[in-house]
Amino acid sequence: MIKEIQNKKLSIIAFSGDFDKLTAAFTLATGAAATGYEVNLFFTFWGLNAIKRKSGRAPAGKGFLPGIFGILMGGLKAAPVSRLNFAGISPKIFRRLMRKNNVATLEELVDAAKELGINFYACEMAMHVLGLEKSDFIPQVKEVLGVASFLKLSEDGQTLFI
Amino acid sequence: MIKEIQNKKLSIIAFSGDFDKLTAAFTLATGAAATGYEVNLFFTFWGLNAIKRKSGRAPAGKGFLPGIFGILMGGLKAAPVSRLNFAGISPKIFRRLMRKNNVATLEELVDAAKELGINFYACEMAMHVLGLEKSDFIPQVKEVLGVASFLKLSEDGQTLFI
Amino acid sequence: MIKEIQNKKLSIIAFSGDFDKLTAAFTLATGAAATGYEVNLFFTFWGLNAIKRKSGRAPAGKGFLPGIFGILMGGLKAAPVSRLNFAGISPKIFRRLMRKNNVATLEELVDAAKELGINFYACEMAMHVLGLEKSDFIPQVKEVLGVASFLKLSEDGQTLFI
Repeated sequence: MIKEIQNKKLSIIAFSGDFDKLTAAFTLATGAAATGYEVNLFFTFWGLNAIKRKSGRAPAGKGFLPGIFGILMGGLKAAPVSRLNFAGISPKIFRRLMRKNNVATLEELVDAAKELGINFYACEMAMHVLGLEKSDFIPQVKEVLGVASFLKLSEDGQTLFI
Repeated sequence: MIKEIQNKKLSIIAFSGDFDKLTAAFTLATGAAATGYEVNLFFTFWGLNAIKRKSGRAPAGKGFLPGIFGILMGGLKAAPVSRLNFAGISPKIFRRLMRKNNVATLEELVDAAKELGINFYACEMAMHVLGLEKSDFIPQVKEVLGVASFLKLSEDGQTLFI
Repeated sequence: MIKEIQNKKLSIIAFSGDFDKLTAAFTLATGAAATGYEVNLFFTFWGLNAIKRKSGRAPAGKGFLPGIFGILMGGLKAAPVSRLNFAGISPKIFRRLMRKNNVATLEELVDAAKELGINFYACEMAMHVLGLEKSDFIPQVKEVLGVASFLKLSEDGQTLFI
Protein backbone atom coordinates (compact mmCIF):
# COMPACT_ATOMS: atom_id res chain seq x y z
CA MET A 1 0.00 0.00 0.00
CA ILE A 2 1.31 3.46 -0.82
CA LYS A 3 1.34 6.29 1.65
CA GLU A 4 0.21 9.69 0.51
CA ILE A 5 1.42 12.91 1.99
CA GLN A 6 -0.94 13.93 4.73
CA ASN A 7 -1.75 17.41 5.72
CA LYS A 8 0.89 18.56 8.13
CA LYS A 9 -0.08 17.64 11.64
CA LEU A 10 1.21 18.42 15.13
CA SER A 11 -0.19 16.64 18.19
CA ILE A 12 0.81 17.52 21.72
CA ILE A 13 0.15 15.53 24.86
CA ALA A 14 -0.06 18.38 27.38
CA PHE A 15 0.80 16.54 30.58
CA SER A 16 2.49 19.32 32.51
CA GLY A 17 0.67 22.05 34.41
CA ASP A 18 3.78 24.22 34.69
CA PHE A 19 3.57 27.77 33.43
CA ASP A 20 6.71 27.50 31.31
CA LYS A 21 5.83 24.13 29.76
CA LEU A 22 2.25 25.19 29.01
CA THR A 23 3.67 28.32 27.38
CA ALA A 24 5.93 26.11 25.26
CA ALA A 25 3.01 23.83 24.33
CA PHE A 26 0.76 26.71 23.28
CA THR A 27 3.58 28.53 21.46
CA LEU A 28 4.29 25.41 19.40
CA ALA A 29 0.58 24.79 18.85
CA THR A 30 -0.29 28.32 17.71
CA GLY A 31 2.88 28.65 15.63
CA ALA A 32 2.00 25.42 13.84
CA ALA A 33 -1.68 26.28 13.37
CA ALA A 34 -0.80 29.73 12.01
CA THR A 35 1.20 28.08 9.22
CA GLY A 36 -1.46 25.60 8.18
CA TYR A 37 -0.91 22.63 10.46
CA GLU A 38 -3.74 20.58 11.89
CA VAL A 39 -3.08 20.80 15.64
CA ASN A 40 -4.36 18.48 18.37
CA LEU A 41 -3.87 19.22 22.06
CA PHE A 42 -4.55 16.30 24.38
CA PHE A 43 -4.68 17.51 27.98
CA THR A 44 -3.94 14.99 30.71
CA PHE A 45 -3.00 14.98 34.39
CA TRP A 46 -1.65 18.40 35.49
CA GLY A 47 -2.25 19.70 31.98
CA LEU A 48 -6.00 19.51 32.64
CA ASN A 49 -5.56 22.58 34.86
CA ALA A 50 -5.01 24.66 31.73
CA ILE A 51 -8.51 23.99 30.42
CA LYS A 52 -10.46 24.32 33.64
CA ARG A 53 -13.37 26.70 33.51
CA LYS A 54 -12.19 28.27 36.78
CA SER A 55 -8.73 29.64 36.14
CA GLY A 56 -7.92 30.46 39.79
CA ARG A 57 -7.62 28.14 42.78
CA ALA A 58 -10.95 26.40 43.29
CA PRO A 59 -12.19 22.95 44.16
CA ALA A 60 -13.07 20.92 41.06
CA GLY A 61 -14.37 17.44 40.52
CA LYS A 62 -16.41 15.17 42.73
CA GLY A 63 -15.32 14.04 46.17
CA PHE A 64 -13.11 15.28 48.99
CA LEU A 65 -9.65 14.38 47.69
CA PRO A 66 -10.22 15.68 44.14
CA GLY A 67 -11.50 18.89 45.73
CA ILE A 68 -8.29 19.30 47.73
CA PHE A 69 -6.18 18.65 44.65
CA GLY A 70 -8.29 21.14 42.70
CA ILE A 71 -7.43 23.86 45.20
CA LEU A 72 -3.76 22.91 45.44
CA MET A 73 -3.27 22.74 41.69
CA GLY A 74 -5.51 25.61 40.66
CA GLY A 75 -6.16 26.57 37.06
CA LEU A 76 -4.27 28.41 34.35
CA LYS A 77 -3.68 31.55 36.42
CA ALA A 78 -2.12 29.56 39.27
CA ALA A 79 0.36 27.62 37.13
CA PRO A 80 3.85 27.61 38.70
CA VAL A 81 7.16 27.74 36.86
CA SER A 82 8.92 24.35 36.78
CA ARG A 83 12.16 25.78 38.23
CA LEU A 84 12.95 28.81 40.42
CA ASN A 85 9.25 29.39 41.04
CA PHE A 86 9.85 31.41 44.24
CA ALA A 87 6.37 30.87 45.61
CA GLY A 88 4.68 32.14 42.48
CA ILE A 89 6.73 35.30 41.93
CA SER A 90 8.46 33.93 38.82
CA PRO A 91 5.29 33.41 36.74
CA LYS A 92 4.41 37.05 37.48
CA ILE A 93 7.87 38.18 36.37
CA PHE A 94 7.65 36.11 33.20
CA ARG A 95 4.23 37.56 32.41
CA ARG A 96 5.71 41.06 32.84
CA LEU A 97 8.72 40.26 30.65
CA MET A 98 6.41 38.85 27.99
CA ARG A 99 4.23 41.94 27.95
CA LYS A 100 7.25 44.26 27.99
CA ASN A 101 8.89 42.41 25.10
CA ASN A 102 5.67 42.08 23.10
CA VAL A 103 5.57 38.30 23.39
CA ALA A 104 2.13 36.76 23.77
CA THR A 105 1.33 35.81 27.38
CA LEU A 106 0.02 32.36 28.24
CA GLU A 107 -3.57 33.61 28.43
CA GLU A 108 -3.22 35.30 25.04
CA LEU A 109 -1.76 32.10 23.59
CA VAL A 110 -4.71 30.07 24.87
CA ASP A 111 -7.12 32.57 23.30
CA ALA A 112 -5.16 32.45 20.04
CA ALA A 113 -5.29 28.64 20.08
CA LYS A 114 -9.08 28.77 20.30
CA GLU A 115 -9.31 31.27 17.46
CA LEU A 116 -6.97 29.27 15.24
CA GLY A 117 -9.27 26.24 15.50
CA ILE A 118 -6.82 24.07 17.39
CA ASN A 119 -8.50 20.89 18.64
CA PHE A 120 -8.71 20.57 22.42
CA TYR A 121 -9.16 17.07 23.86
CA ALA A 122 -9.32 15.94 27.49
CA CYS A 123 -7.91 12.60 28.67
CA GLU A 124 -10.64 10.27 29.86
CA MET A 125 -8.45 8.28 32.25
CA ALA A 126 -6.98 11.28 34.06
CA MET A 127 -10.47 12.74 34.43
CA HIS A 128 -11.59 9.53 36.13
CA VAL A 129 -8.64 9.65 38.55
CA LEU A 130 -9.16 13.31 39.44
CA GLY A 131 -12.95 13.07 39.49
CA LEU A 132 -13.35 15.73 36.78
CA GLU A 133 -16.19 15.99 34.27
CA LYS A 134 -16.45 17.62 30.87
CA SER A 135 -18.48 20.42 32.46
CA ASP A 136 -15.45 21.39 34.57
CA PHE A 137 -13.66 22.46 31.38
CA ILE A 138 -13.91 25.42 29.01
CA PRO A 139 -16.43 24.90 26.20
CA GLN A 140 -13.69 24.70 23.55
CA VAL A 141 -12.88 21.17 24.71
CA LYS A 142 -14.15 19.24 21.72
CA GLU A 143 -14.17 15.74 23.10
CA VAL A 144 -13.12 13.45 25.93
CA LEU A 145 -10.79 10.84 24.47
CA GLY A 146 -9.05 7.64 25.49
CA VAL A 147 -5.41 6.98 24.66
CA ALA A 148 -6.14 4.77 21.65
CA SER A 149 -8.37 7.36 19.99
CA PHE A 150 -5.78 10.05 20.53
CA LEU A 151 -2.96 7.95 19.07
CA LYS A 152 -5.13 7.21 16.07
CA LEU A 153 -5.82 10.86 15.30
CA SER A 154 -2.19 11.85 15.81
CA GLU A 155 -0.83 9.23 13.40
CA ASP A 156 1.45 10.35 10.57
CA GLY A 157 2.28 13.64 12.18
CA GLN A 158 4.69 14.91 14.79
CA THR A 159 3.71 14.03 18.35
CA LEU A 160 5.24 15.65 21.42
CA PHE A 161 4.88 14.89 25.12
CA ILE A 162 5.22 18.10 27.12
CA MET B 1 12.22 4.55 -3.19
CA ILE B 2 8.63 4.14 -2.11
CA LYS B 3 7.58 3.96 1.50
CA GLU B 4 4.97 1.41 2.51
CA ILE B 5 2.69 1.78 5.45
CA GLN B 6 4.37 0.23 8.44
CA ASN B 7 2.66 -1.47 11.25
CA LYS B 8 1.61 1.16 13.71
CA LYS B 9 4.39 1.74 16.17
CA LEU B 10 4.81 3.70 19.42
CA SER B 11 8.20 4.08 21.08
CA ILE B 12 8.68 5.76 24.42
CA ILE B 13 11.93 6.89 25.99
CA ALA B 14 11.03 6.47 29.66
CA PHE B 15 13.48 8.91 31.25
CA SER B 16 11.45 10.00 34.26
CA GLY B 17 11.13 8.03 37.47
CA ASP B 18 8.16 10.08 38.66
CA PHE B 19 5.00 8.22 39.58
CA ASP B 20 2.75 10.40 37.44
CA LYS B 21 5.00 10.35 34.37
CA LEU B 22 5.55 6.59 34.61
CA THR B 23 1.77 6.21 34.86
CA ALA B 24 1.41 8.30 31.71
CA ALA B 25 4.06 6.26 29.90
CA PHE B 26 2.48 2.93 30.80
CA THR B 27 -1.04 4.17 30.06
CA LEU B 28 0.03 5.25 26.58
CA ALA B 29 1.99 2.05 26.06
CA THR B 30 -0.77 -0.33 27.11
CA GLY B 31 -3.48 1.66 25.32
CA ALA B 32 -1.45 1.47 22.12
CA ALA B 33 -0.57 -2.21 22.49
CA ALA B 34 -4.21 -3.11 23.18
CA THR B 35 -5.18 -1.64 19.82
CA GLY B 36 -2.54 -3.40 17.80
CA TYR B 37 0.49 -1.14 18.01
CA GLU B 38 4.02 -2.44 18.29
CA VAL B 39 5.26 -0.76 21.47
CA ASN B 40 8.86 -0.19 22.55
CA LEU B 41 9.77 1.13 25.99
CA PHE B 42 13.35 2.32 26.35
CA PHE B 43 14.15 2.91 30.02
CA THR B 44 16.94 5.33 30.85
CA PHE B 45 18.20 7.32 33.84
CA TRP B 46 15.49 7.65 36.53
CA GLY B 47 13.18 5.53 34.39
CA LEU B 48 15.40 2.52 35.10
CA ASN B 49 13.90 2.52 38.61
CA ALA B 50 10.64 1.27 37.11
CA ILE B 51 12.19 -1.98 35.92
CA LYS B 52 14.35 -2.79 38.92
CA ARG B 53 13.88 -6.23 40.36
CA LYS B 54 13.63 -4.71 43.85
CA SER B 55 10.65 -2.38 43.82
CA GLY B 56 11.36 -0.80 47.23
CA ARG B 57 14.33 1.26 48.40
CA ALA B 58 17.44 -0.89 48.12
CA PRO B 59 21.03 -0.48 47.00
CA ALA B 60 21.54 -1.50 43.40
CA GLY B 61 24.54 -1.58 41.13
CA LYS B 62 28.22 -1.85 41.86
CA GLY B 63 30.11 0.62 44.01
CA PHE B 64 29.42 2.98 46.86
CA LEU B 65 27.86 5.96 45.02
CA PRO B 66 25.53 3.87 42.84
CA GLY B 67 24.47 2.09 46.05
CA ILE B 68 23.54 5.38 47.69
CA PHE B 69 21.63 6.49 44.61
CA GLY B 70 19.87 3.12 44.56
CA ILE B 71 18.55 3.70 48.05
CA LEU B 72 17.64 7.35 47.44
CA MET B 73 15.82 6.65 44.21
CA GLY B 74 14.24 3.34 45.10
CA GLY B 75 12.20 1.26 42.69
CA LEU B 76 8.68 1.40 41.31
CA LYS B 77 6.97 1.45 44.72
CA ALA B 78 9.06 4.43 45.88
CA ALA B 79 8.33 6.63 42.84
CA PRO B 80 7.43 10.20 43.87
CA VAL B 81 4.91 12.47 42.17
CA SER B 82 6.58 15.21 40.09
CA ARG B 83 4.63 18.00 41.83
CA LEU B 84 2.97 18.30 45.26
CA ASN B 85 4.57 15.04 46.38
CA PHE B 86 4.20 15.88 50.10
CA ALA B 87 6.90 13.44 51.23
CA GLY B 88 5.30 10.49 49.46
CA ILE B 89 1.71 10.99 50.57
CA SER B 90 0.50 12.01 47.11
CA PRO B 91 1.44 8.76 45.34
CA LYS B 92 -0.55 6.91 48.03
CA ILE B 93 -3.55 9.18 47.46
CA PHE B 94 -3.33 8.74 43.70
CA ARG B 95 -3.14 4.96 44.09
CA ARG B 96 -6.30 5.13 46.26
CA LEU B 97 -8.13 7.37 43.78
CA MET B 98 -7.18 5.01 40.98
CA ARG B 99 -8.50 1.95 42.77
CA LYS B 100 -11.66 3.78 43.86
CA ASN B 101 -12.35 5.00 40.32
CA ASN B 102 -11.51 1.65 38.71
CA VAL B 103 -8.48 3.03 36.91
CA ALA B 104 -5.51 0.68 36.64
CA THR B 105 -2.77 1.46 39.16
CA LEU B 106 0.85 1.82 38.08
CA GLU B 107 1.69 -1.72 39.19
CA GLU B 108 -1.31 -3.10 37.27
CA LEU B 109 -0.24 -1.13 34.20
CA VAL B 110 3.26 -2.60 34.37
CA ASP B 111 1.79 -6.10 34.62
CA ALA B 112 -0.53 -5.38 31.69
CA ALA B 113 2.43 -4.11 29.65
CA LYS B 114 4.23 -7.42 30.19
CA GLU B 115 1.14 -9.42 29.21
CA LEU B 116 0.54 -7.34 26.09
CA GLY B 117 4.01 -8.20 24.83
CA ILE B 118 5.37 -4.66 25.01
CA ASN B 119 9.13 -4.61 24.42
CA PHE B 120 11.20 -3.48 27.40
CA TYR B 121 14.71 -2.17 26.69
CA ALA B 122 17.30 -0.75 29.09
CA CYS B 123 19.69 2.06 28.14
CA GLU B 124 23.28 0.89 28.04
CA MET B 125 24.84 4.28 28.76
CA ALA B 126 22.70 5.07 31.81
CA MET B 127 23.42 1.58 33.19
CA HIS B 128 27.16 2.32 32.91
CA VAL B 129 26.77 5.62 34.76
CA LEU B 130 24.67 4.14 37.55
CA GLY B 131 26.67 0.90 37.75
CA LEU B 132 23.62 -1.24 36.99
CA GLU B 133 23.62 -4.63 35.27
CA LYS B 134 20.95 -6.52 33.36
CA SER B 135 20.55 -8.81 36.38
CA ASP B 136 19.33 -5.82 38.44
CA PHE B 137 16.23 -5.65 36.26
CA ILE B 138 13.03 -7.66 35.94
CA PRO B 139 13.32 -10.59 33.51
CA GLN B 140 10.97 -8.96 30.99
CA VAL B 141 13.76 -6.63 29.94
CA LYS B 142 14.46 -7.99 26.49
CA GLU B 143 17.74 -6.34 25.70
CA VAL B 144 20.25 -3.69 26.71
CA LEU B 145 20.46 -1.16 23.88
CA GLY B 146 22.49 1.85 22.85
CA VAL B 147 20.90 5.01 21.51
CA ALA B 148 21.54 4.21 17.84
CA SER B 149 19.87 0.79 18.07
CA PHE B 150 16.86 2.27 19.81
CA LEU B 151 16.44 5.03 17.22
CA LYS B 152 16.66 2.45 14.48
CA LEU B 153 13.88 0.29 15.90
CA SER B 154 11.66 3.29 16.62
CA GLU B 155 11.89 4.68 13.08
CA ASP B 156 8.67 5.36 11.16
CA GLY B 157 6.53 5.41 14.25
CA GLN B 158 5.63 7.90 16.94
CA THR B 159 8.38 8.49 19.48
CA LEU B 160 7.86 10.22 22.82
CA PHE B 161 10.29 11.35 25.49
CA ILE B 162 8.62 11.14 28.90
CA MET C 1 1.54 12.43 -4.26
CA ILE C 2 4.08 9.83 -3.33
CA LYS C 3 6.37 10.16 -0.36
CA GLU C 4 9.99 9.19 -0.74
CA ILE C 5 12.13 7.95 2.05
CA GLN C 6 13.91 10.92 3.56
CA ASN C 7 17.28 10.90 5.10
CA LYS C 8 16.94 9.81 8.68
CA LYS C 9 16.33 12.81 10.85
CA LEU C 10 16.15 13.49 14.59
CA SER C 11 15.02 16.86 15.93
CA ILE C 12 15.05 17.73 19.60
CA ILE C 13 13.38 20.67 21.29
CA ALA C 14 15.79 21.19 24.19
CA PHE C 15 13.54 22.99 26.66
CA SER C 16 15.04 21.77 29.92
CA GLY C 17 18.15 23.21 31.52
CA ASP C 18 18.55 20.23 33.87
CA PHE C 19 21.88 18.43 33.83
CA ASP C 20 20.32 14.99 33.40
CA LYS C 21 17.89 16.00 30.66
CA LEU C 22 20.56 17.90 28.75
CA THR C 23 22.75 14.82 29.02
CA ALA C 24 19.90 12.74 27.59
CA ALA C 25 19.35 15.23 24.76
CA PHE C 26 23.02 15.33 23.78
CA THR C 27 23.42 11.56 24.13
CA LEU C 28 20.50 11.00 21.76
CA ALA C 29 21.75 13.71 19.40
CA THR C 30 25.33 12.48 19.18
CA GLY C 31 24.29 8.82 19.00
CA ALA C 32 22.00 9.65 16.09
CA ALA C 33 24.54 11.87 14.29
CA ALA C 34 27.25 9.22 14.64
CA THR C 35 25.06 6.77 12.73
CA GLY C 36 24.20 9.08 9.86
CA TYR C 37 21.17 11.01 11.07
CA GLU C 38 20.62 14.66 10.33
CA VAL C 39 20.22 16.14 13.81
CA ASN C 40 18.58 19.43 14.76
CA LEU C 41 18.74 20.85 18.28
CA PHE C 42 16.33 23.67 18.99
CA PHE C 43 17.17 25.32 22.30
CA THR C 44 14.41 27.17 24.11
CA PHE C 45 13.69 28.51 27.60
CA TRP C 46 15.95 26.87 30.20
CA GLY C 47 17.65 24.92 27.44
CA LEU C 48 19.20 28.17 26.21
CA ASN C 49 21.52 27.98 29.23
CA ALA C 50 23.32 25.08 27.53
CA ILE C 51 24.48 27.22 24.64
CA LYS C 52 25.45 30.37 26.52
CA ARG C 53 28.93 31.63 25.85
CA LYS C 54 29.51 31.97 29.60
CA SER C 55 29.13 28.52 31.08
CA GLY C 56 29.17 29.61 34.74
CA ARG C 57 26.76 31.86 36.63
CA ALA C 58 26.80 35.29 34.99
CA PRO C 59 24.28 37.94 34.03
CA ALA C 60 23.17 37.62 30.42
CA GLY C 61 20.75 39.54 28.26
CA LYS C 62 19.54 43.11 28.45
CA GLY C 63 17.80 44.58 31.47
CA PHE C 64 17.64 44.00 35.20
CA LEU C 65 15.31 41.00 35.41
CA PRO C 66 16.96 39.01 32.61
CA GLY C 67 20.27 39.72 34.37
CA ILE C 68 18.98 38.27 37.63
CA PHE C 69 17.62 35.21 35.83
CA GLY C 70 20.95 34.83 34.04
CA ILE C 71 22.76 34.58 37.37
CA LEU C 72 20.16 32.30 38.96
CA MET C 73 20.06 29.92 36.01
CA GLY C 74 23.71 29.99 35.03
CA GLY C 75 25.13 28.19 32.04
CA LEU C 76 26.08 24.61 31.24
CA LYS C 77 28.39 24.18 34.22
CA ALA C 78 25.69 25.31 36.66
CA ALA C 79 22.99 22.92 35.40
CA PRO C 80 21.21 21.17 38.29
CA VAL C 81 19.91 17.60 38.30
CA SER C 82 16.10 17.43 37.97
CA ARG C 83 15.73 15.28 41.11
CA LEU C 84 17.87 14.82 44.22
CA ASN C 85 20.08 17.76 43.25
CA PHE C 86 21.33 18.31 46.83
CA ALA C 87 22.40 21.90 46.22
CA GLY C 88 24.55 20.99 43.24
CA ILE C 89 26.39 18.01 44.71
CA SER C 90 24.62 15.49 42.48
CA PRO C 91 25.80 16.92 39.14
CA LYS C 92 29.36 16.68 40.49
CA ILE C 93 28.80 13.06 41.51
CA PHE C 94 27.30 12.22 38.11
CA ARG C 95 30.25 13.85 36.34
CA ARG C 96 32.60 11.72 38.48
CA LEU C 97 30.64 8.52 37.78
CA MET C 98 30.68 9.32 34.08
CA ARG C 99 34.44 9.81 34.01
CA LYS C 100 35.04 6.74 36.15
CA ASN C 101 32.85 4.58 33.94
CA ASN C 102 34.22 6.00 30.69
CA VAL C 103 30.93 7.58 29.72
CA ALA C 104 31.17 10.96 27.99
CA THR C 105 30.43 13.88 30.32
CA LEU C 106 27.96 16.59 29.35
CA GLU C 107 30.75 18.96 28.26
CA GLU C 108 32.31 16.21 26.14
CA LEU C 109 28.92 15.45 24.59
CA VAL C 110 28.44 19.11 23.67
CA ASP C 111 31.90 19.16 22.06
CA ALA C 112 31.10 15.93 20.20
CA ALA C 113 27.83 17.44 18.97
CA LYS C 114 29.71 20.37 17.47
CA GLU C 115 32.24 18.09 15.79
CA LEU C 116 29.52 15.82 14.38
CA GLY C 117 27.95 18.78 12.61
CA ILE C 118 24.74 18.76 14.60
CA ASN C 119 22.64 21.85 13.86
CA PHE C 120 22.17 24.20 16.82
CA TYR C 121 19.21 26.58 16.69
CA ALA C 122 18.02 29.11 19.27
CA CYS C 123 14.34 29.90 19.85
CA GLU C 124 13.50 33.45 18.84
CA MET C 125 10.53 33.85 21.18
CA ALA C 126 12.34 32.64 24.33
CA MET C 127 15.25 34.95 23.51
CA HIS C 128 12.82 37.88 23.40
CA VAL C 129 11.35 36.95 26.79
CA LEU C 130 14.75 36.52 28.44
CA GLY C 131 16.33 39.50 26.67
CA LEU C 132 19.04 37.33 25.09
CA GLU C 133 20.81 38.01 21.80
CA LYS C 134 22.63 35.74 19.36
CA SER C 135 25.92 37.16 20.63
CA ASP C 136 25.18 35.68 24.08
CA PHE C 137 25.52 32.19 22.59
CA ILE C 138 28.39 30.02 21.46
CA PRO C 139 29.35 30.57 17.79
CA GLN C 140 28.08 27.09 16.80
CA VAL C 141 24.51 28.37 17.01
CA LYS C 142 23.63 28.39 13.33
CA GLU C 143 20.47 30.41 13.36
CA VAL C 144 17.75 32.00 15.45
CA LEU C 145 14.45 30.39 14.48
CA GLY C 146 10.76 30.78 15.12
CA VAL C 147 8.50 27.82 15.87
CA ALA C 148 7.13 27.51 12.34
CA SER C 149 10.59 27.34 10.77
CA PHE C 150 11.70 24.72 13.25
CA LEU C 151 8.63 22.55 12.66
CA LYS C 152 9.22 22.79 8.93
CA LEU C 153 12.81 21.58 9.13
CA SER C 154 11.92 18.77 11.53
CA GLU C 155 9.16 17.36 9.32
CA ASP C 156 9.27 13.69 8.36
CA GLY C 157 11.66 12.76 11.12
CA GLN C 158 11.46 11.92 14.79
CA THR C 159 10.88 14.93 17.02
CA LEU C 160 11.34 14.91 20.78
CA PHE C 161 10.58 17.49 23.45
CA ILE C 162 13.08 17.19 26.30
